[in-house]
Amino acid sequence: MSIDPNPQNLAAIAATDVAPRAKPSNYPEPFASRVSGRQKRALGEAFGLRNFGVNLTRLQPGAISALRHSHSRQDEFIYILEGHPVLVTDQGETPLEPGMCAGFRAGSGNAHHLVNRGDELVVYLEVGDRTRGDSVNYPDDDLAAVIGPDGGWQFAHKDGRSY
Amino acid sequence: MSIDPNPQNLAAIAATDVAPRAKPSNYPEPFASRVSGRQKRALGEAFGLRNFGVNLTRLQPGAISALRHSHSRQDEFIYILEGHPVLVTDQGETPLEPGMCAGFRAGSGNAHHLVNRGDELVVYLEVGDRTRGDSVNYPDDDLAAVIGPDGGWQFAHKDGRSY
Repeated sequence: MSIDPNPQNLAAIAATDVAPRAKPSNYPEPFASRVSGRQKRALGEAFGLRNFGVNLTRLQPGAISALRHSHSRQDEFIYILEGHPVLVTDQGETPLEPGMCAGFRAGSGNAHHLVNRGDELVVYLEVGDRTRGDSVNYPDDDLAAVIGPDGGWQFAHKDGRSY
Repeated sequence: MSIDPNPQNLAAIAATDVAPRAKPSNYPEPFASRVSGRQKRALGEAFGLRNFGVNLTRLQPGAISALRHSHSRQDEFIYILEGHPVLVTDQGETPLEPGMCAGFRAGSGNAHHLVNRGDELVVYLEVGDRTRGDSVNYPDDDLAAVIGPDGGWQFAHKDGRSY
């Protein structure tokens, strides 16, 4: 099923009928390969939503949701639909199962990601808002997200060198 | 399980372990009774999120999600987990099932709600942001949401008379 180019005309859709994003990650290498087993369907964008995004995201065995990170101004939330990922935060590891959820408050500084260490698929919903002026911290990796000359996000080394 | 008073310390939780809201609805009568079969668990608030809310909401048979309404500035999104509600919008009725989702873009003017006409429970996730200056339109009912003297929302008749 294709998405109507005018999102207003779409009343409802099976989430799995939303096409996966063509470009799986914006990370530079070697980081992009670490999320190569991740697939995102932008559910909110299918309806033209602009204030927050909702993705239906799948992690193949061995995949991670993202590099472990925290946001300065944007809240995030996840709800597990299938599988058993491990949530990794500054406090350690928490095993998750379907029906569990977690929220990551903007500015808490508590870096987080999901890791699929099992042999089954992980499927979850993720929500994040679009508050301007956000910055992202990656405590485990030599990566910084900076505003590029086009006004969009670009990735760089933490000392500012480009990838 | 009780929620930690400091949301930052909660790594993850089973969504059904979040306590339902004590006050089921802010609507005045006769509208409050129409949503008496609705139960909301504020998942995002359990983690101290402020930019958007995520609720795990249950509709008993016969219950509606809300009066049919549209928001001027706040986006909304739903994802069906259990049951078969009917989505009612300006375009008509759309039967939903688990795994289906719908988004309601701010300012579209397309009023919407869910109705549980079946004999089984409906469970869904709902997301809405907290953009300021929002107003809500109820095309089917004599209800208007206005800013009260305390700065919070109050309900009134459409001619301004209080309930």
